[in-house]
Amino acid sequence: MATRRIGIIMNGVTGRMGTNQHLVRSIVALRNEGGVRLANGDRLMPDPILVGRNEEKLRALAKAHGIERWSNDLAACLANSEDEIYFDAQTTTRRVESVSAAIRAGKHIYCEKPTATDTESALALARQASAAGVKHGVVQDKLFLPGLMKLKRVIESGFFGRILSVRGEFGYWVFEGDWQEAQRPSWNYRQEEGGGIIVDMLCHWRYVLANLFGEIQSLSCLGATHIPERVDERGHTYAATADDAAYATFELEGGIVAHFNSSWCVRVYRDELLSIQVDGTHGSAVAGLRECKVQSRVNTPRAIWNPDVPNPIDFYASWQDVPDNEVFANAFKVQWELFLKHVVDDEPFAWDLLAGARGVQVAELGLRSWRERRWVDVPDLIDEAR
Amino acid sequence: MATRRIGIIMNGVTGRMGTNQHLVRSIVALRNEGGVRLANGDRLMPDPILVGRNEEKLRALAKAHGIERWSNDLAACLANSEDEIYFDAQTTTRRVESVSAAIRAGKHIYCEKPTATDTESALALARQASAAGVKHGVVQDKLFLPGLMKLKRVIESGFFGRILSVRGEFGYWVFEGDWQEAQRPSWNYRQEEGGGIIVDMLCHWRYVLANLFGEIQSLSCLGATHIPERVDERGHTYAATADDAAYATFELEGGIVAHFNSSWCVRVYRDELLSIQVDGTHGSAVAGLRECKVQSRVNTPRAIWNPDVPNPIDFYASWQDVPDNEVFANAFKVQWELFLKHVVDDEPFAWDLLAGARGVQVAELGLRSWRERRWVDVPDLIDEAR
Amino acid sequence: MATRRIGIIMNGVTGRMGTNQHLVRSIVALRNEGGVRLANGDRLMPDPILVGRNEEKLRALAKAHGIERWSNDLAACLANSEDEIYFDAQTTTRRVESVSAAIRAGKHIYCEKPTATDTESALALARQASAAGVKHGVVQDKLFLPGLMKLKRVIESGFFGRILSVRGEFGYWVFEGDWQEAQRPSWNYRQEEGGGIIVDMLCHWRYVLANLFGEIQSLSCLGATHIPERVDERGHTYAATADDAAYATFELEGGIVAHFNSSWCVRVYRDELLSIQVDGTHGSAVAGLRECKVQSRVNTPRAIWNPDVPNPIDFYASWQDVPDNEVFANAFKVQWELFLKHVVDDEPFAWDLLAGARGVQVAELGLRSWRERRWVDVPDLIDEAR
Amino acid sequence: MATRRIGIIMNGVTGRMGTNQHLVRSIVALRNEGGVRLANGDRLMPDPILVGRNEEKLRALAKAHGIERWSNDLAACLANSEDEIYFDAQTTTRRVESVSAAIRAGKHIYCEKPTATDTESALALARQASAAGVKHGVVQDKLFLPGLMKLKRVIESGFFGRILSVRGEFGYWVFEGDWQEAQRPSWNYRQEEGGGIIVDMLCHWRYVLANLFGEIQSLSCLGATHIPERVDERGHTYAATADDAAYATFELEGGIVAHFNSSWCVRVYRDELLSIQVDGTHGSAVAGLRECKVQSRVNTPRAIWNPDVPNPIDFYASWQDVPDNEVFANAFKVQWELFLKHVVDDEPFAWDLLAGARGVQVAELGLRSWRERRWVDVPDLIDEAR
Repeated sequence: MATRRIGIIMNGVTGRMGTNQHLVRSIVALRNEGGVRLANGDRLMPDPILVGRNEEKLRALAKAHGIERWSNDLAACLANSEDEIYFDAQTTTRRVESVSAAIRAGKHIYCEKPTATDTESALALARQASAAGVKHGVVQDKLFLPGLMKLKRVIESGFFGRILSVRGEFGYWVFEGDWQEAQRPSWNYRQEEGGGIIVDMLCHWRYVLANLFGEIQSLSCLGATHIPERVDERGHTYAATADDAAYATFELEGGIVAHFNSSWCVRVYRDELLSIQVDGTHGSAVAGLRECKVQSRVNTPRAIWNPDVPNPIDFYASWQDVPDNEVFANAFKVQWELFLKHVVDDEPFAWDLLAGARGVQVAELGLRSWRERRWVDVPDLIDEAR
Repeated sequence: MATRRIGIIMNGVTGRMGTNQHLVRSIVALRNEGGVRLANGDRLMPDPILVGRNEEKLRALAKAHGIERWSNDLAACLANSEDEIYFDAQTTTRRVESVSAAIRAGKHIYCEKPTATDTESALALARQASAAGVKHGVVQDKLFLPGLMKLKRVIESGFFGRILSVRGEFGYWVFEGDWQEAQRPSWNYRQEEGGGIIVDMLCHWRYVLANLFGEIQSLSCLGATHIPERVDERGHTYAATADDAAYATFELEGGIVAHFNSSWCVRVYRDELLSIQVDGTHGSAVAGLRECKVQSRVNTPRAIWNPDVPNPIDFYASWQDVPDNEVFANAFKVQWELFLKHVVDDEPFAWDLLAGARGVQVAELGLRSWRERRWVDVPDLIDEAR
Repeated sequence: MATRRIGIIMNGVTGRMGTNQHLVRSIVALRNEGGVRLANGDRLMPDPILVGRNEEKLRALAKAHGIERWSNDLAACLANSEDEIYFDAQTTTRRVESVSAAIRAGKHIYCEKPTATDTESALALARQASAAGVKHGVVQDKLFLPGLMKLKRVIESGFFGRILSVRGEFGYWVFEGDWQEAQRPSWNYRQEEGGGIIVDMLCHWRYVLANLFGEIQSLSCLGATHIPERVDERGHTYAATADDAAYATFELEGGIVAHFNSSWCVRVYRDELLSIQVDGTHGSAVAGLRECKVQSRVNTPRAIWNPDVPNPIDFYASWQDVPDNEVFANAFKVQWELFLKHVVDDEPFAWDLLAGARGVQVAELGLRSWRERRWVDVPDLIDEAR
Repeated sequence: MATRRIGIIMNGVTGRMGTNQHLVRSIVALRNEGGVRLANGDRLMPDPILVGRNEEKLRALAKAHGIERWSNDLAACLANSEDEIYFDAQTTTRRVESVSAAIRAGKHIYCEKPTATDTESALALARQASAAGVKHGVVQDKLFLPGLMKLKRVIESGFFGRILSVRGEFGYWVFEGDWQEAQRPSWNYRQEEGGGIIVDMLCHWRYVLANLFGEIQSLSCLGATHIPERVDERGHTYAATADDAAYATFELEGGIVAHFNSSWCVRVYRDELLSIQVDGTHGSAVAGLRECKVQSRVNTPRAIWNPDVPNPIDFYASWQDVPDNEVFANAFKVQWELFLKHVVDDEPFAWDLLAGARGVQVAELGLRSWRERRWVDVPDLIDEAR
């Protein structure tokens, strides 16, 4: 059993998600576990070099996690043929340029979503990568949430019969920042800095829906800025110019209707921050981040409308937990492992830059539907790009 | 303290709702209580005559509830000047003709919703009644559900601060009729007989929204027939031609967004069959048929997205029941009492045939939005009819 | 990221509060955490020198907590220009002289309350410090109790509507010292040694009320010595000459009425040793040391006086916890950090020697109200001293 | 065993308290039980005649409770020598005139509190009754609350050692009348109609304190009108001119301090609507309407102030219920029985018109203390009146 090294240029991991999910809980965790086990039994050891603009931060981050290499010179890093993979978790507006340069340098690409701020650029990036013959992938972490992996299992078991509809509720109350600190950065609420919940979440719903139920055929989306004024990290009041709630309805392949409410202005009366209910002819499920419950056709209580007496049925009681039956690793780490095996062992990896472009496309069409107050169709990007 | 009689022609009370809600729990109940107390302390005793097509059923129903009068000759009933009120709970398709005749006969009108199958007819009926100078009202029972009355109280208390959004989930699984009997009549699933959940429920959402939050300004609605084939009361398989689920988004006065899912093909993972969540700057509420819970701004837990650990917060625990603080009577009976006082004491009664026409209008526009795949505005009917 | 040192002369930390709260849980804890983070990212490391009369105790205390410097020569310490801050936790009667000397030596001042035994001296100290241009602060730890910080949050959220009244219950049974050892030192019960609950607690209520609700405008106070004889630390019976209970009513700005019972002769039938109930038009709260519960207007049960049946309402059940939503550090440490940042970064710090003088003033007026059996007004000290 | 009749002229029982407590739960209940058992074993059967101004109401009330006699001519009733007792539950402003007339007619007197609107009149009434040689009593129902009767038992057992202090909390939130109906009549909130909580409740606290602990020697009282505007029974907004909260401190015989908060603007975080805590050297008690709990000296936990950890002691757990050990009848009925035995069997009855005058005196002095912002002494009325 040999151990081989793989060099990864990690750009933008000083941000919250980059540090916590990609560096600490994925790459550092994989290193601590002795690397990724390959098909032939060898171990693949990630050897990251941290890239960014703030030298101080990079040094501290590298030191804190036992990483030897860091740099604020991306060009030099890309020139180093020892590092095969380029990973990008910068803010969206800087992504295309850096990823494109990395493709030109012959690197395999793995990056955060959205892959670009518009569909055209995202698609161009996908084409460039395919033409260059490098491997490429985009983070789609919610697919690897334990709750959704169990839901996937339920779907594959045939439990639902024919699936009819999907309801998604995502959100929680993000404090305004005045008398309690906000849980999210202020740029999320400024359109001019790439903020907005439609751009943020519709990318997610696209791959969640596509992977679980089928491609989106058309959509109708209404955005809203419910809280027009917030207080930022330095205590300054600012105008919230981006949408903080989105009410979106999707028509999927096979006539399935999916409706998703996404909001940062909703108080949670649910099991988890994300709740997806699926109803089928033979059964239903409610899945969240970690849990998944089902109710089979035969366990369905006979509900009758009668407001004259207190509700005689405890509706929650007739749902049954789907057991874990396995240990679920961090969603980001799971996808990192799959991508590394894709690069080294050529194992299949479905979530490429084209999939990333589709996410950007759905967000863009969501904004357009809101603006034009109508349903919009979602044209297929495959033919054009593959 | 005197007791005076009021004669009521009750047409169509042999149906499920007519019998249970209007006859037994409203009129018969009021009779057993000694009638309705009027402003001057007198009691008003309803004296119904049951009208219908099936003589057998009428006789049995009258006998079972100690009612002396029944008839299958509506014209004769309308000719009797001793009976001042005409009530209609027939199927929708027969409503306009009968109500119109009753207005011509000078009766005060109280009837079930929808008041007509199209807005124009509904509006014409409202105009006819107003021109004739009779009093008129339309059943809007959901306003008098204990849960929604408590929600109304919470709104009036100023608890919410500014209201941002409303989420409604209505529905339950109506069995297909094959291996388990359906809970609803088969005509509900046949468009040609006035069925469909859009026609049925959008009338309700219109008055619920208008009374609690503000008039609907525009709407977007998607219907679906998730279950295309059902089995009827006689065991025959039939094609379900009407919509059995509706996904509707409303924009209300003041920028409030309301999204309602209504479905007869959904399994219930909720406290009650109807669940309405309201979010405001200072607090939120979840109301159902009988219960209402609130969460104030200061009780809002600091939710953070972290799928790596089981959810550390019991989100339900930080909601607090709104106490009853009064005894709630049957919603239908409450509205009957208000209508009878409107007729006799001239007390205000907001839910007239014009309000009924607005309900029909919203249902009609819901169907149109679905057909045209776009948002439609809801023009005001007041100017035309008042 | 550099670390800079700040020298602190800590006088009187061999006493109970000085050792536990100021030395161990504040200064030593800050040292163990790597110091206080300053605005520019640097760390500020407290370097204390312990001063006192008992050499033995000082040496032991220093050793136990890894502190190198101690002394019983205050004058020499004040002469050392390397130590910028003087902290005083001696008994009250010795405070003015030592603090005054420290001001003359150009030290920044931080000290325990009461800052003096009479208002005039307290005010003179505040004036001296301001004239000398040194920075100064007074311990007001109860402001930083988690329960009261959550109460502050509730106030700032607008939850209460208009605040009407405040009820405070503070106290517990301090054993007399005969068959069970007393929990408090005997000097607390001797007026001639600065004891008495009015002097001790009214300083606290002053800043708690002023910071949460508004300045005290007038007050009425009744003291009592409920237990006239106690047993001291050495087993000797002594006459308790100081008040051990105080019944004080305050009128605050804006017409708010606050009544506080403080007692060392009361058994606790409450959630915590301190309980403050606040009632406002739109909601109420009950806060203690660590917890805070609220009841909104809409959750208020309809209470009716009916002693004929056992109470049908569980009044506690309709109150809801205010969630922590943050990690609360030791109250003393929190204020120490704020004071150190005030000294080094010039950040605002409201609780200075003038605020300390106001506390002494209120205690003094409390004693006067008791003596003269009438309400007394609380004149503003600002004009005179700032 | 014979049954003898006693005629009672009941004036003012059409009001809420008069009907429910005096008529239904006292006199009617005693009649249904077969009357009051006298010393010689005979039964005394009350034979009431209902007197009032509203003939309609009187007739209905009499009929509903099987009473044959009613009248709206008080003079005629007083002239009937068959009726020995005159009972008065009219509004306070009408009490003196009617009671005085009844004394002149030689009737024994039993009446509601306050017995007059000022001390002088109340005292004059007491003197008149004594001079006339009739027996007289005043309702002091709170003495007969099960909770306070158990507290009385605890006092008499010597449980407390020396009693040090008494804390009373009385009150609940009376809705303002806008979005929820008020639980109390609007005249309670209008000074010009005899409203105000000082007048209402200080009468009660006087006899509760005097009967349990000792006479009030001096008092300090602050009133407040926290809610300046309310909505009355007819939906009209009115100015609340009377006090709706009272903060009163009393010095009792033997140096006991008693502080009572009374309020109609407080939300209840207590076991019951009234809560009285008594602390003594050897034990403490908390009593309410029906319950009474005690903590003995030996069960007292060693409480220590430490806000750094969640409260380690469940303070409620170390209190113990005082068992009923008897069946408690309605407080009003109990006192009625005692008064009837006083009249017929000459058994002792301490709560006479002089006691009633003392209640009026304390209320009057409470208002004076508030006005003059000082403690006022409570002179003894005994010498003057007996």
